[in-house]
Amino acid sequence: MSQLRVESFTISLDGYGAGPNQDLINPLGVGGRSLHGWAIATRTFQQHLFGTDGGETGVDDDFAVRGFRNVGAWILGRNMFGPVRGPWPDENWRGWWGENPVYHVPVFVLTHHARAPLVMEGGTTFHFVTEGIASALARAREAAAGKDVRLGGGPNVIQQFLRQRLIDEMHIAISPVVLGSGERLFEGIDLQALGYGCTQHVASPNATHVVLSRQ
Amino acid sequence: MSQLRVESFTISLDGYGAGPNQDLINPLGVGGRSLHGWAIATRTFQQHLFGTDGGETGVDDDFAVRGFRNVGAWILGRNMFGPVRGPWPDENWRGWWGENPVYHVPVFVLTHHARAPLVMEGGTTFHFVTEGIASALARAREAAAGKDVRLGGGPNVIQQFLRQRLIDEMHIAISPVVLGSGERLFEGIDLQALGYGCTQHVASPNATHVVLSRQ
Repeated sequence: MSQLRVESFTISLDGYGAGPNQDLINPLGVGGRSLHGWAIATRTFQQHLFGTDGGETGVDDDFAVRGFRNVGAWILGRNMFGPVRGPWPDENWRGWWGENPVYHVPVFVLTHHARAPLVMEGGTTFHFVTEGIASALARAREAAAGKDVRLGGGPNVIQQFLRQRLIDEMHIAISPVVLGSGERLFEGIDLQALGYGCTQHVASPNATHVVLSRQ
Repeated sequence: MSQLRVESFTISLDGYGAGPNQDLINPLGVGGRSLHGWAIATRTFQQHLFGTDGGETGVDDDFAVRGFRNVGAWILGRNMFGPVRGPWPDENWRGWWGENPVYHVPVFVLTHHARAPLVMEGGTTFHFVTEGIASALARAREAAAGKDVRLGGGPNVIQQFLRQRLIDEMHIAISPVVLGSGERLFEGIDLQALGYGCTQHVASPNATHVVLSRQ
């Protein structure tokens, strides 16, 4: 059965999944990059994101690897796709990732503003979904053709899916940094009432990894 | 210089420092005891709290040990002292810990309702402070006579001290459990703006330990 999974989603010690004041210079918000130190150091991220042969193996990399395993489609909130807000002024913004994005599968971007699909190199096509999360999930599942759907974020989008109990499994990494402000991943979310529990817990020197599963 | 320290304060993966609905049966709130699995298993807690010779050594115990080192006085919020709210109906409530409490030093309990000091066995005296956190800290420092003051909590009391930048160092343990609701330790606290950063990060199979220091 195709699952909806959150993978390698990193929060700070004070619970923030993204820093404040996202813009073109700070796609993860101010301070957001420091969150992802554990991931950037892994062999998997070095290969997938930067095309290099470097990077470390070990606990962190094990979780990075599982994040890319059996993923047939992605769902992203619009702010993860870019800094543009409101109606699209033109077709110029094509994502943070250049002409050959890291996804290599169909990506469904949640937005209130319609836009034609954007076919990129390497198998990635961005589809813009204006009908809400249930529609995005149905389309992503169909596109994934039996594989899983990976939900990228941001926090607000993850909260919407959590409230509907649509997420099967979440791998969350907790980085040893404080952000102080931004978007809290679990703001307004009662994980226990929603039936999620911690089913895995492993730490490396760089981060603590937990898996929360719907029970 | 005498420091104000938070030690062995445990939060859940979703950031709660105590569960909801504290009462006589659930001094840490519903689910709050599951938070403290890492601590209860340590040799230090077994000795200090339960008077047994059992318990584990290792990373968790190292942090438990440091929590009791060089402590000359404690400060507690009233809810940590007991479930009684509002004016004291009588003198019957003498804390959760029996006649020989675990502190063995003066303990300053923050409350809005005056009460005579309570001299217990083993060196613990509970003093009830109605003049606020600055007064409690001044009295605790004097009683500590050069040693440090340990701030026990709860979350709301820690937040009051944090906002005034009065805490020098906090050891926080993150347990692999979700509570879903209760009191968030860092609710309304911008650690970065207050100048706190993570200066230590070690994990065991039972918990992730971090030390936040004022910088």
